[in-house]
Amino acid sequence: MRATTIHGPGDIRFEEVADPVIRKPTDAIVRVTAGCICGSDLWPYRGENPVRRGSTIGHECIGVVEEVGAEVRDFRAGDFVVVPFCHCDNTCAHCRAGVQSACVNISMTASGQGELALVGQADGSLVATGDTPGDDELASVLALSDVMPTGWHAAVSAGVAKGGSVVVVGDGAVGLCGVLAASVMGAETIVAMSRHEPRQLIAKDFGATHVVAERGDAAEEAVMEITDGVGADAVLECVGTDAAIQTAFAVARPGSTVGFVGVPHGVELPVGRMFSKNVGLRGGVAPVRRYLPELLDLVRDGRIDPGKVFDLTLPMAESPEGYRAMDERRAIKVMLRP
Amino acid sequence: MRATTIHGPGDIRFEEVADPVIRKPTDAIVRVTAGCICGSDLWPYRGENPVRRGSTIGHECIGVVEEVGAEVRDFRAGDFVVVPFCHCDNTCAHCRAGVQSACVNISMTASGQGELALVGQADGSLVATGDTPGDDELASVLALSDVMPTGWHAAVSAGVAKGGSVVVVGDGAVGLCGVLAASVMGAETIVAMSRHEPRQLIAKDFGATHVVAERGDAAEEAVMEITDGVGADAVLECVGTDAAIQTAFAVARPGSTVGFVGVPHGVELPVGRMFSKNVGLRGGVAPVRRYLPELLDLVRDGRIDPGKVFDLTLPMAESPEGYRAMDERRAIKVMLRP
Repeated sequence: MRATTIHGPGDIRFEEVADPVIRKPTDAIVRVTAGCICGSDLWPYRGENPVRRGSTIGHECIGVVEEVGAEVRDFRAGDFVVVPFCHCDNTCAHCRAGVQSACVNISMTASGQGELALVGQADGSLVATGDTPGDDELASVLALSDVMPTGWHAAVSAGVAKGGSVVVVGDGAVGLCGVLAASVMGAETIVAMSRHEPRQLIAKDFGATHVVAERGDAAEEAVMEITDGVGADAVLECVGTDAAIQTAFAVARPGSTVGFVGVPHGVELPVGRMFSKNVGLRGGVAPVRRYLPELLDLVRDGRIDPGKVFDLTLPMAESPEGYRAMDERRAIKVMLRP
Repeated sequence: MRATTIHGPGDIRFEEVADPVIRKPTDAIVRVTAGCICGSDLWPYRGENPVRRGSTIGHECIGVVEEVGAEVRDFRAGDFVVVPFCHCDNTCAHCRAGVQSACVNISMTASGQGELALVGQADGSLVATGDTPGDDELASVLALSDVMPTGWHAAVSAGVAKGGSVVVVGDGAVGLCGVLAASVMGAETIVAMSRHEPRQLIAKDFGATHVVAERGDAAEEAVMEITDGVGADAVLECVGTDAAIQTAFAVARPGSTVGFVGVPHGVELPVGRMFSKNVGLRGGVAPVRRYLPELLDLVRDGRIDPGKVFDLTLPMAESPEGYRAMDERRAIKVMLRP
């Protein structure tokens, strides 16, 4: 098959690789209808994470089941499915506790920007859409493989509550989905931190009541003004840098929780401040499978439209351009079609 | 008055100092019936925290109101009261949210190991016992000024739930009170980490179902065996050292929360593990006033007896010996009487 690969920092290719094969009887292979580029794919692209030369890249996709292993009971060839980026048996103690991202049989999608994707623990991982999503909802269904459940997880982890105030740090696709999640959960005040007009517009469309373009101390002051000097009831950290984490804790009110979903890079948690202000931290790798049924219903009922985070669609063969566009912030999030 | 003072590492004295005076109309002065030494007092005693030479030390006490400022409405001379170590107006936004330890008008007891203690925001801070506690419950009432609510806060922060498993890291008086809190909250499995037999006995008396004497990797293995390889549903970190924090996260199951109340010293939070395992952190300085009415009822109804953590009572004039006894772990917690 052909798939997107990474050979080093800035070196993305679309090329012929070996087809995935069923190795375990619980595996399935999905023919990708649409995949996309994740903000976290930019870490290796930018040389911040080590890479294995020539390995496939891309963990978000939806598509049609092509083949299933002998023990897969709930899916068969032809089913249209959402593939959670982390695969889980959905039966172990961690899955039962709602932390499918810590499943004892965890694996991850490795070629979501290619023509075929191998899925481990297919019965536990996949969620069928029932029919083939139309062009009008394809993007929103694709968003369910990672970005929307990740924004949702930030909101759940931060304890977003009806009527409360929420600050979302990060205006990438995850942060925007965090705004959408907070809105669905009934937050009254939703502050999107964003300096980029196209992203500010989506944030507002998703339910942001305020936009703060400042950073650092000025951002903190702006949030304090919006929240009558109290700080936010919940903060969603959707970046993963130390600056974003420090801002998140600076704007969180005492007793609140920062929900973090940005993969930490060079982060030093402000333990003294956390202790003196009683500001907690929860979150991590999103248990996508846990949220999928509920979020799929919201999409199909037309109540949420997370697909709006895709502002560029390219043929899969042009994935290198997709990376460049996201790296240079010319695109918020790029969809790739075979 | 005479009070305990600190002049440098290891240099505790009991000497004549200026009487506290009412400076704000919301202040009160309490004549100390009993005070005690906190584990956190050992940080400056051991030279880990800077000290101002000759300053009074001691933030835990109970006693009788001696004098109140002009605006104090709810208390008058003669009332027997519990003095929360951190004083609060109990009306600001943070207090209303249950984080009285972040009150905008916060202050702390500064001479709880002396004859008189100044209390800020008396109406918001103090809790009257209604009568004078008898000798049989004096210790347990004294424990309400800090140590018991702090252990309770660890359990609340960690989300201890009925029927769940709990690990308590730290067998100091706070850790033991954490065991007691977990027991009252209905935890089914309570693991006390302790290497000291007298403390193990109190832990068991307070409701510990298991004692783990190991540390480091061996401690982690022991907890994994007790919890069927899953890890604990809730972990209470009651020490404040980096080793204790690392152990706490090592034994916490994915999706759980570490409740921390040990003042962090040299702690580097394991952000990568927290993220990959979805283990959260909550807690900090205990909002004593929030828990006081409920805990006072439990004490007076005879349902909890946190006073058992006091295994040495000394005349206040012998406070230097009290510090030595706690520093050398000859005593778990020392009560001081005028």
